[in-house]
Amino acid sequence: MARIVQKFGGTSVADMARIKAVAETVKRELDLGSEVAVVLSAMAGVTDQLASYASAAGGAHYSPEYDTVLSTGEQVTAGLLALSLQEMGIPARSWLGWQIPIRTDGVHGKARIEAIETQALEQALANGEVPVIPGFQGISPEGRITTLGRGGSDTSAVALAAALGAERCDIYTDVEGVYTTDPRIVSNAKKLEKITYEEMLEMASLGAKVLQTRAVELAMKTGQRLHVRSSYSDVPGTLVVGEEEIVEKELVSGIAYSRDEAKITLVQVADKPGVAAAIFGPLADASINVDMIVQNVSADGKATDLTFTVTKNDLERAVKTIEEKKDELEYSDLVSDLNVAKISVIGVGMRSHAGIAQRMFTALAEKGINIKVISTSEIKVSVLIAEEYTELALRALHTAYGLDDG
Amino acid sequence: MARIVQKFGGTSVADMARIKAVAETVKRELDLGSEVAVVLSAMAGVTDQLASYASAAGGAHYSPEYDTVLSTGEQVTAGLLALSLQEMGIPARSWLGWQIPIRTDGVHGKARIEAIETQALEQALANGEVPVIPGFQGISPEGRITTLGRGGSDTSAVALAAALGAERCDIYTDVEGVYTTDPRIVSNAKKLEKITYEEMLEMASLGAKVLQTRAVELAMKTGQRLHVRSSYSDVPGTLVVGEEEIVEKELVSGIAYSRDEAKITLVQVADKPGVAAAIFGPLADASINVDMIVQNVSADGKATDLTFTVTKNDLERAVKTIEEKKDELEYSDLVSDLNVAKISVIGVGMRSHAGIAQRMFTALAEKGINIKVISTSEIKVSVLIAEEYTELALRALHTAYGLDDG
Repeated sequence: MARIVQKFGGTSVADMARIKAVAETVKRELDLGSEVAVVLSAMAGVTDQLASYASAAGGAHYSPEYDTVLSTGEQVTAGLLALSLQEMGIPARSWLGWQIPIRTDGVHGKARIEAIETQALEQALANGEVPVIPGFQGISPEGRITTLGRGGSDTSAVALAAALGAERCDIYTDVEGVYTTDPRIVSNAKKLEKITYEEMLEMASLGAKVLQTRAVELAMKTGQRLHVRSSYSDVPGTLVVGEEEIVEKELVSGIAYSRDEAKITLVQVADKPGVAAAIFGPLADASINVDMIVQNVSADGKATDLTFTVTKNDLERAVKTIEEKKDELEYSDLVSDLNVAKISVIGVGMRSHAGIAQRMFTALAEKGINIKVISTSEIKVSVLIAEEYTELALRALHTAYGLDDG
Repeated sequence: MARIVQKFGGTSVADMARIKAVAETVKRELDLGSEVAVVLSAMAGVTDQLASYASAAGGAHYSPEYDTVLSTGEQVTAGLLALSLQEMGIPARSWLGWQIPIRTDGVHGKARIEAIETQALEQALANGEVPVIPGFQGISPEGRITTLGRGGSDTSAVALAAALGAERCDIYTDVEGVYTTDPRIVSNAKKLEKITYEEMLEMASLGAKVLQTRAVELAMKTGQRLHVRSSYSDVPGTLVVGEEEIVEKELVSGIAYSRDEAKITLVQVADKPGVAAAIFGPLADASINVDMIVQNVSADGKATDLTFTVTKNDLERAVKTIEEKKDELEYSDLVSDLNVAKISVIGVGMRSHAGIAQRMFTALAEKGINIKVISTSEIKVSVLIAEEYTELALRALHTAYGLDDG
């Protein structure tokens, strides 16, 4: 009997009509003879509303109370789906994070799952019950409710699928799968039939909102097959799988972008051992994720410029954290820039082919787009450009790499 | 050091501005040198919204899932108040029902508190922390979230006050105290300085919405002093205390009314032993509270009419429950009536004075109001009348018993 974990995002549970539709989707999978566990997000907009209350309340963000408030959105949808399934004659019950339990560390607002005790869920599945699990939440070692960070429900779903040994984790969303780039911007973007974890990881971390980075990382680590598909239609979506499952590898699979980053440049940082650690250590301690880091060799061997990016949300805290260390770091100036977008070209085929980056630079130059920062990895090339050029850059690159449909 | 439990209702925490005001009220009590624990309702309207979602979802009412959904409203306000207190530099944390824990029975939607483990709360108070406790919720023997029924936050507050040995339980609400009758209907209603548990109990169970019946019962049982007061002003409210604390007893303390009841009459029920048990047993099993019960002696010794009231919400289920037993009960007809109001005259002084009921019947007769059903207890007289006469009856009785202000 196939065991499937289904995850539904906020737009898929936005109101009671949508939740009833989710119940129908669960039933279709059950009718195929599968065992099904369901992971849900909060109704679209609810978590934002709760976060805005919590912000207005003041007190500590990323705190136990913040998580106590924010976790309620998923608790509501989980209860409502269980009721809807029961109404259809399908045995179901909600399992809150603390009831399973889903054990996390104590980093509130951005907790990491450490262990999922599956005994109760296995028993429920064995009894023919559908466990309905609120995503995004767990329980800390101190017994407080934790949340996994925005979009954490994907992570919950993948972690549960892995813990339960599920054959597939279906991520239901409001798009039909993973596209070569954002179809809202590039109209002839193509849906990908399959994509590797690594590519998906780059796509996710680079701003393709369809799956959360941590969820893909976890899927890759555990070998959990994902199926990104639409909650509005039955057409197959995109399978996210290991590289060995993909025979014909595309040179470039997709173009991702993110407007969610901000750039910080430290001008004339002392060029000596330990400086990078002195900068990024305190940021890590403050749970601020740093994405791109670019440092050039210094011309005079004494000082150099260091540029890195953080999410726009974290910018203020990042700047404050750095400025508190100004004496120690000996930089002359700190320049921050919110007006940036990151554009990335991604493909596992890149490993064995030269010239991929060059094609990107040429395509952007032809449109007169200035590149502020470049960063590369084995399977992607990312650049920072002025935010206003985002759409133009995406369309130009989509064409340059031959991804246009038809 | 005085220990106070403060309870704030839904209108007192309706938005962030109101929650901040609650935090100020908590601070004022702390500044007097008191230890304070706080119990909160959900934001006004939120529980209704959640209940309407749950109803739309279908499935079982009074079920674990229903409670999982409904309990989130209080979880949110508890987290938000804890954040607001922290923002003011006051150590505070939320304690959810399952974290304390507040142990209840397993009757979902109408659970009864069985035990409150105070160890963690005592520790928090000893540490100078303000525990903020969502009302209305507990945990069942099976580890599911339970709710105590509408208005259950009052019960939570009184139970916590009793468990913690609090000197006073302050019930903050949107009125200034307990009035001789509803001031929205009778403009010269007076605020009572003190009222006995028994009178308050009758007032509450008879429809005065200021305190929930079960909360008053519990306060009476545990001797917990209550102070019903306004969250908008600092003026003293009404103390609810034991009879021994009230020297000068009023003949009649107040006039209560309820439009929340529906009348069921079983026509020509067999007049034989065991019939009442056969009727009310199944209703009790279905957790339907029956209020007034009136049965007259039968004229022929064979059959009689039996009338009782249930809440309007429970009417449909009550009728269904009775009709399933029709063969066994041998009644000829079941008549239900939603168009009724219950008017009650209450006073501990009634015990030692005759003529109280007669004055009521006369006052109603003078206004041409027909009495459908009469029921009396030691300290109250209740009548059912047609709902449209509610206001007229209240004003007439308020005058007849000399309660008018000034």
